[in-house]
Amino acid sequence: MASQNLLLLPGDGIGPEIMQEVKKVIAWFNEKGGMSFETDEGLVGGSAYDAHGQSISEEDMAKAMAADAVIFGAVGGPKWDDVPYEVRPEAGLLRLRKDMQLFANLRPAICYPALADASSLKKDVIEGLDILIVRELTGGVYFGEPKEIIDLGNGQKRGIDTQVYDTYEIERISGVAFELARTRGNKVTSMEKRNVMKSGVLWNEVVTQTHKNGYEDVQLEHMLADAGGMQLVRWPKQFDVIVTDNLFGDMLSDVAAMLTGSLGMLPSASLGAPDGVTGKRKALYEPVHGSAPDIAGTGAANPIAMIASFGMALRYSFEEVAAADKLDKAIANALDKGLRTKDIASPGQTTVSTVEMGDAIIAEL
Amino acid sequence: MASQNLLLLPGDGIGPEIMQEVKKVIAWFNEKGGMSFETDEGLVGGSAYDAHGQSISEEDMAKAMAADAVIFGAVGGPKWDDVPYEVRPEAGLLRLRKDMQLFANLRPAICYPALADASSLKKDVIEGLDILIVRELTGGVYFGEPKEIIDLGNGQKRGIDTQVYDTYEIERISGVAFELARTRGNKVTSMEKRNVMKSGVLWNEVVTQTHKNGYEDVQLEHMLADAGGMQLVRWPKQFDVIVTDNLFGDMLSDVAAMLTGSLGMLPSASLGAPDGVTGKRKALYEPVHGSAPDIAGTGAANPIAMIASFGMALRYSFEEVAAADKLDKAIANALDKGLRTKDIASPGQTTVSTVEMGDAIIAEL
Ligand SMILES: CC(C)[C@H](C(=O)O)[C@@H](O)C(=O)O
Ligand SMILES: CC(C)[C@H](C(=O)O)[C@@H](O)C(=O)O
Repeated sequence: MASQNLLLLPGDGIGPEIMQEVKKVIAWFNEKGGMSFETDEGLVGGSAYDAHGQSISEEDMAKAMAADAVIFGAVGGPKWDDVPYEVRPEAGLLRLRKDMQLFANLRPAICYPALADASSLKKDVIEGLDILIVRELTGGVYFGEPKEIIDLGNGQKRGIDTQVYDTYEIERISGVAFELARTRGNKVTSMEKRNVMKSGVLWNEVVTQTHKNGYEDVQLEHMLADAGGMQLVRWPKQFDVIVTDNLFGDMLSDVAAMLTGSLGMLPSASLGAPDGVTGKRKALYEPVHGSAPDIAGTGAANPIAMIASFGMALRYSFEEVAAADKLDKAIANALDKGLRTKDIASPGQTTVSTVEMGDAIIAEL
Repeated sequence: MASQNLLLLPGDGIGPEIMQEVKKVIAWFNEKGGMSFETDEGLVGGSAYDAHGQSISEEDMAKAMAADAVIFGAVGGPKWDDVPYEVRPEAGLLRLRKDMQLFANLRPAICYPALADASSLKKDVIEGLDILIVRELTGGVYFGEPKEIIDLGNGQKRGIDTQVYDTYEIERISGVAFELARTRGNKVTSMEKRNVMKSGVLWNEVVTQTHKNGYEDVQLEHMLADAGGMQLVRWPKQFDVIVTDNLFGDMLSDVAAMLTGSLGMLPSASLGAPDGVTGKRKALYEPVHGSAPDIAGTGAANPIAMIASFGMALRYSFEEVAAADKLDKAIANALDKGLRTKDIASPGQTTVSTVEMGDAIIAEL
């Protein structure tokens, strides 16, 4: 395999600790897995702000644009609650998503068998759960203009955000959802609020049309996003692939992740369109969980979501399916042997540290 | 008690059936409870559209504006999926909310002890759950302009919705939340996405300021709305009162309702500001569940949320607290005796019809 270029952006909070474990995994694949990854590292979020007053530097942005894949930790924390809006930690992540045009965010919500008891839901409701949320990531209320606070005088201000979706944006994200459904349960549920939002009306229309234009073999269902939230809680196994917009996807994927009892375990992939010449997609991989500043530095962080995110990179950026399967299996084996970080331990169960979990996964490889 | 004026708007689907049971309850309070309610009835939603091509007629709107309280069933159904956006069933409800200026939507999510097993969540997670979601109901992306679909040519359209919040809107809804918290657990959690939305930044700022201006005895906590959705699933008992905007409130209250396992049981109140002269608030009461067209006419609908919504009217519009308590107790008693409609029955349990449940509650009164 030709040498591949990874940019590691550990970020804030537990980001650096869990990235440390991914580095061990990358080294293993270089030494024993016949791969040839070259890694570079940059700053993002609060740590970038502390270093140079921006949530990501132009230099690191350029590296991200050139990398074969970006491996991203997490950003944010109370330390930066009062920095100006434009340079808040999240701005770095949002800029990466927007400039790299990572419109397709894949968030699997699976329930690891060893952890079915860790959920707040009844075991039969979530055991074997395997859904994939396909969230639109470069449009909607996250980026629409106007987005501003206006001073109206008299002590009154007005906060404005704009949800905008164009036909092509809905077309390409639903295309991704239909393609992925074919590799899984062959069913797509599209969620919006067409009863209240015009962008929801368009969303519904374009998904329906895209389905007609070449995906009629896939089962398509429409659901209002609020009803979708309910149904996720009631009986999540009714879903296979869910496709939805940026904001609904943010909410629904977090709810779905928490259902599984495996929040510290869930990876995500954010993908761009295939390049016209090389066919390669820009891509960023990150855990679904956040920067957990409360446990940063204590060795309690669960590195699995971060390691599994690298697994998604193997699968989606490098087409190393066997290696990805091997890594997923190593994670499952470590869990089956009873290794638990604090977040996934049952009361009374012995826990291991971030480093110990990383080592155990390497040992399983 | 002077005569009070109720406008009943049964709406679509199971709306008329469950309203029928409320009528029996109203009659009971008139005959045996020393009250004097006068009722009038109107059309809303699909049934209004079928009758006169509008989702609510001007005449019924005028009645709603004049009523002491509106008792609302549910609207919508596949029959009206293709009617023009402006006259879709939901438009009638949205117009009532907007024209009556019902900015405060109170959605209790409580777990009825008799039903703790009906939830998809583990019993210890939801047993005794009692949270109140205070949702802003006349602002945000529901009503902001522009709200339109533009034809861009080349087969491209653009769907636009606008989220708008002014200081005074956030002030008054958070005031309601703080006041209500004082009558309960004395804690308010405010939810927004200030890390992505400017309206969220303003929301956070104004709630914090309102807290400082006279509510510092109440505990205030801020949470990002996506994290809030997660925490609702993880450990909902951490919450007392949640205050949030129209769209997040829509999603989060549905998730919260489903957690309880008691969706067919949950009422809601939508209140306006007190009138400057009389001190009376305009008000509309409706169940949290929808019109359930799939079971309409089968006698399977659970009338409890609808009856409990009338109970909220007794409490909030008529200050008949003893009567409201009596009605809530009658509902709890019927449940304790094992009466179940289909939606809340455990496998194998005998079920009763809509009418039988209504009769049983009357008998308990
Ligand atoms: C950190 C934040 C900007 C981000 C989002 O809202 O998209 C996060 O919640 C996520 O889901 O990746
Ligand atoms: C029917 C619909 C317009 C409404 C809403 O979105 O507000 C409903 O979901 C609700 O929560 O009352």
